[in-house]
Amino acid sequence: MFESAELEHRVDKKDFDAQVPQLRADLLDAQYDVLQAKRFPVIILVNGVDGAGKGETVNLLNSWMDPRHIDTHAFPPPSDEERERPPMWRFWRSLPPKGRVGIMFGNWYTDPIQGRVNGTFKTSELDQRLEEIVRFEKMLTDEGALLIKFWFHLSKNDQKKRLKALSKDPKQSWRVSEQDWWRYEHYDEYREVSEHALRHSSTGNAPWVVVDGFDERYRSLAVGRIVLDAMRRRLARPDSNLRIAAAPFQRPVPGENLLTALDMSKALAKKKYESELAEWQGRLNALCRDERFQGRSLIAVFEGNDAAGKGGTIRRITSALDARQYRIVPIAAPTEEERAQPYLWRFWRQVPRHGRVTIFDRSWYGRVLVERVEGFCGEADWMRAYAEINDFEDQLVRDGAVVAKFWLAISKDEQYRRFKEREDTRFKRFKITDEDWRNREKWDDYEQAVCDMVDRTSTEIAPWTLVPANDKNYARIHLLRTLCEHLERSLKKDPAKSGKKK
Amino acid sequence: MFESAELEHRVDKKDFDAQVPQLRADLLDAQYDVLQAKRFPVIILVNGVDGAGKGETVNLLNSWMDPRHIDTHAFPPPSDEERERPPMWRFWRSLPPKGRVGIMFGNWYTDPIQGRVNGTFKTSELDQRLEEIVRFEKMLTDEGALLIKFWFHLSKNDQKKRLKALSKDPKQSWRVSEQDWWRYEHYDEYREVSEHALRHSSTGNAPWVVVDGFDERYRSLAVGRIVLDAMRRRLARPDSNLRIAAAPFQRPVPGENLLTALDMSKALAKKKYESELAEWQGRLNALCRDERFQGRSLIAVFEGNDAAGKGGTIRRITSALDARQYRIVPIAAPTEEERAQPYLWRFWRQVPRHGRVTIFDRSWYGRVLVERVEGFCGEADWMRAYAEINDFEDQLVRDGAVVAKFWLAISKDEQYRRFKEREDTRFKRFKITDEDWRNREKWDDYEQAVCDMVDRTSTEIAPWTLVPANDKNYARIHLLRTLCEHLERSLKKDPAKSGKKK
Repeated sequence: MFESAELEHRVDKKDFDAQVPQLRADLLDAQYDVLQAKRFPVIILVNGVDGAGKGETVNLLNSWMDPRHIDTHAFPPPSDEERERPPMWRFWRSLPPKGRVGIMFGNWYTDPIQGRVNGTFKTSELDQRLEEIVRFEKMLTDEGALLIKFWFHLSKNDQKKRLKALSKDPKQSWRVSEQDWWRYEHYDEYREVSEHALRHSSTGNAPWVVVDGFDERYRSLAVGRIVLDAMRRRLARPDSNLRIAAAPFQRPVPGENLLTALDMSKALAKKKYESELAEWQGRLNALCRDERFQGRSLIAVFEGNDAAGKGGTIRRITSALDARQYRIVPIAAPTEEERAQPYLWRFWRQVPRHGRVTIFDRSWYGRVLVERVEGFCGEADWMRAYAEINDFEDQLVRDGAVVAKFWLAISKDEQYRRFKEREDTRFKRFKITDEDWRNREKWDDYEQAVCDMVDRTSTEIAPWTLVPANDKNYARIHLLRTLCEHLERSLKKDPAKSGKKK
Repeated sequence: MFESAELEHRVDKKDFDAQVPQLRADLLDAQYDVLQAKRFPVIILVNGVDGAGKGETVNLLNSWMDPRHIDTHAFPPPSDEERERPPMWRFWRSLPPKGRVGIMFGNWYTDPIQGRVNGTFKTSELDQRLEEIVRFEKMLTDEGALLIKFWFHLSKNDQKKRLKALSKDPKQSWRVSEQDWWRYEHYDEYREVSEHALRHSSTGNAPWVVVDGFDERYRSLAVGRIVLDAMRRRLARPDSNLRIAAAPFQRPVPGENLLTALDMSKALAKKKYESELAEWQGRLNALCRDERFQGRSLIAVFEGNDAAGKGGTIRRITSALDARQYRIVPIAAPTEEERAQPYLWRFWRQVPRHGRVTIFDRSWYGRVLVERVEGFCGEADWMRAYAEINDFEDQLVRDGAVVAKFWLAISKDEQYRRFKEREDTRFKRFKITDEDWRNREKWDDYEQAVCDMVDRTSTEIAPWTLVPANDKNYARIHLLRTLCEHLERSLKKDPAKSGKKK
């Protein structure tokens, strides 16, 4: 969930200065259009890791837009007036009216997350609060509000650096409190609880936007563009059609993404490959015959670029297993029977029993990849799919399944080379179709879809692994090793405790 | 929530026989249209109290429609195949495809409710299961499914009679198991848990329909008409507009309702009235000065027919209170400021502090009364409002508020008399407007809206009291007494335990 936000995106000063004037002008225009239309309020939530620029962002939005039409609210410990009312009362009285922008710096997420990290709340209490929040936000968006939820993220290391830098700077040291350092000490718990909270409260109508807080210029442009885009999209939409998702998915600022950040030069020599292959296949075999596996199952999901080598990799896995133990489920276009059911139905059918392995060669992620890119389903449908998929995997994991998901990535050039090779080799020709060439034309759209998919569905309970696969040897070993390690870790845990309901 | 379903509705044989042929023909037609369109599945959930006709209803639907296109599923204890998959797996594999009707006799509600009554689950676990169900059902309806959720109800007394009658009949005694008797013994817990479950899972898109199971003919006609109406409405709706609520609210069979069932002849002689008034006013005063009230608050909601005497009754309450302690909030059309916010906003503003009393002269129920009847908001909006209102009151109660809601009912004739009197009396003339006369023309629509409101929002934590108010003396005393008793009961309870989150 935080993978993209740890890429340390940067924007250099020249680029930044060149882009800001137009962005500010556009933001102001949009703000005035919202004000004049008086059709909906804009509610911006500012949450995240300390030192990731939350406060600065609040100031930025106030300086880039007209602050006279912005209500900024921070929420210190409740007043006695507030303590004698339900906890949501203070937020209700701070809601911006239609036409205005409300920035909620600290909000209904703050207490539940903080309380869980402190240990004041149990996970079940956190879940109850989150459930109430989901219902509350559904009401807000059903009432027409534009709700933009920002989560500012920093890696643990970057947080430390940032807090240190701020402390040393006499002009800024006031920004760092003892509480900030306490939270830094508890970074790992905080991250786990936050991921849990984000996963359970990211819905089609009110998704979270995780922003890389590492570089101020990047962060500012990203926030500005996301707010602008969200306002424009909501203005363009009639109030009668609220099913369309509220928040945008456009890459806010061009630059590195999870896929381009992969080191595609990774390779493994043949000899080393062979010895490692034997070792990891042996490990996998042993794990799947382990006594503890009898009450568990393994669900491995393979996605990747066309010609990335999914088939070959899958064969390297299955050759380590007893044929009675596994099934490969290739996913093509749905059958008529499958089209007559909710899209997850055909995957539910294939859920393995305990002690079994199911390998999905493509999967339910088609909904947010090919169906999104090709327009086979509407925006509202793929937007809600992320939460539905997380719910699905959550149920699998709580029932004891180990869910491992792999994206096999090759470069555009390498794909071209492989396509050509397939065309030129008689026995490989069946593997290449016109559709492959057509998909290739939408390379950028797919890349965006993959990054969004990982951002929204890579979770602690069912993580994605992105595998650089220009070199098949490297890809296979990297994947096998990751799979074994994930399986090993999971077998050590009580399945009842690895799901969301602790 | 079960009030309407305890009226012991009946349909006589002649009426029944006259109506059935047409209903069956219409049901078959609708079923074939659904089958041909293949646009959506029809999923019918059958739940409720034992002996209330669940099994008979399943058989009935199969005999009134074409059973070749119906999938009926009962869910006995899970098979080993099922036990080794997530709990929802068995339901996924039983979902009907588009075009078909699936009847789920026992379903995803059965285990959670039963488990809570047994004590296997804690309330927090029940809530987690319900939350998952709400997400699952949202997915189903987002995917286009028509979901009809029936809850068959019987009062405790009627259940006992019914189980006894079945046991004595040699042809039917097999219908009654020991488990049925066990559940009868636990009727009260079962009712409480069921109400809780229904309240938390009744959403705009998948509302519960509570059916009075007392009389077989009434029950059959009601179910038939509701299914027919739901299918027709769904067929008429384009798949692209799923925001419209899925289930109908038409009164399925004409007959008694909660309002017509009131005994409007209730009256109280003046002398008796005066002594009782003094007594109950004293009680109320004492309760509001009680030490335990310092951490609580009282929110009293007054709704009723025009000219039913709300104002006079409210004055009898406030004259028992210290003027510094209470506020009366009269609700008229929203101001411009209020219209710029979610509709509940203006009521949140008026939530009292601890130790205080707020009396709402009309309330948030306007959303499902006047706004619904006059078309001031869309169907999808008032349909979701029931759940939003229940959430709101749940928050109030958990924070310590005592929420009491009163509907003052007068007969149509009595209203006419009072309107005329107002017109003829100079100092009362300000109380009557053309709008009052216009509202009167929609008497039946309002009656329907009031019954739906009580069915959907009268809960254990915030019950409705319907007050026959043709005689003002009776109405005032009845209301004051109910209010005092409710307040007294609530003060005995720990507020933290009276809300939904135990």
